[in-house]
Amino acid sequence: MRIVTYGAAVSLDGFIAGPNGEIDWLHFSDDVRDIMKDFFLDVDAILMGRKTWAVGQAQGQGGASGMQTYVFSRTLTSIDVPGVTLIRDDAVTFVRRLKNQPGGRICLMGGGELARPLLAAGLVEEVGLNVHPILLGEGVPMFPTSSARVPLELTDCRTIHGGCVLANYRVVQRRR
Amino acid sequence: MRIVTYGAAVSLDGFIAGPNGEIDWLHFSDDVRDIMKDFFLDVDAILMGRKTWAVGQAQGQGGASGMQTYVFSRTLTSIDVPGVTLIRDDAVTFVRRLKNQPGGRICLMGGGELARPLLAAGLVEEVGLNVHPILLGEGVPMFPTSSARVPLELTDCRTIHGGCVLANYRVVQRRR
Repeated sequence: MRIVTYGAAVSLDGFIAGPNGEIDWLHFSDDVRDIMKDFFLDVDAILMGRKTWAVGQAQGQGGASGMQTYVFSRTLTSIDVPGVTLIRDDAVTFVRRLKNQPGGRICLMGGGELARPLLAAGLVEEVGLNVHPILLGEGVPMFPTSSARVPLELTDCRTIHGGCVLANYRVVQRRR
Repeated sequence: MRIVTYGAAVSLDGFIAGPNGEIDWLHFSDDVRDIMKDFFLDVDAILMGRKTWAVGQAQGQGGASGMQTYVFSRTLTSIDVPGVTLIRDDAVTFVRRLKNQPGGRICLMGGGELARPLLAAGLVEEVGLNVHPILLGEGVPMFPTSSARVPLELTDCRTIHGGCVLANYRVVQRRR
């Protein structure tokens, strides 16, 4: 079954962007570039919610070449970008089916509104954070409030350039 | 001037306790015991809010021997425990004065309701987290919402027993 990784760069207080989408605090480095490059070698599908899609569009990003991007939205009616598919169905149902199809790794992009139901449904195998040395105070949370506890197992932790901490976790799947 | 360290054990999503104060997910180990022992060697004062005090009282904890504990509350009228002082004044004013008095390190305990104004006022020099491998989903946040950004500098990061990540930061004080 295909593996879903939920990854994001976050502030120490868990925000992936400021209250108005600010990402001026993000630290890009050769470390980050190398890590992203290695990670995306095995990825051939990207999942994101409408808001993340809108942020990418505003920055002039479209679909990623060689990848299938799925944008989940009940309000959008169409997306006319090659390699990008609008999914108006229930995310849990769709992702469960997608994981059973042949293919590579699946990357789940933050914000957390899409991650929450997928984590709760046990459809996410890995969580990766690039923790930046700042408290933003407010913003878009990587992990929105949820009533479900999710136990994790630390698989890797290291300090990278700029005082960022890279921490990767395996989701401990509970028996269902 | 005395140094204030704000430290706590947190879930990966930033909670120091569950919604009903649950701390059953905390991982105690020889690593934690040694780290706490070393840290508290230099500490001679502890700051906490009313709720943290109440949690400690419920667990049968009083003041710590050899330390002065300050409990901040506007609703409590008295605390009759040796070594424990109730502070009904403004926390920022009190801590600013305390830091200028002779003494050792000051430990600021979570929850974050007391930490927020002290961080915003530039009265906290260090932030230390013991990040546990779990998403709690909801609970008592280490860093409550604030409108102030606080830049940090990573001073130490290492993995300890149980897949916990110990991360220490120096607060980058802005010029005032």
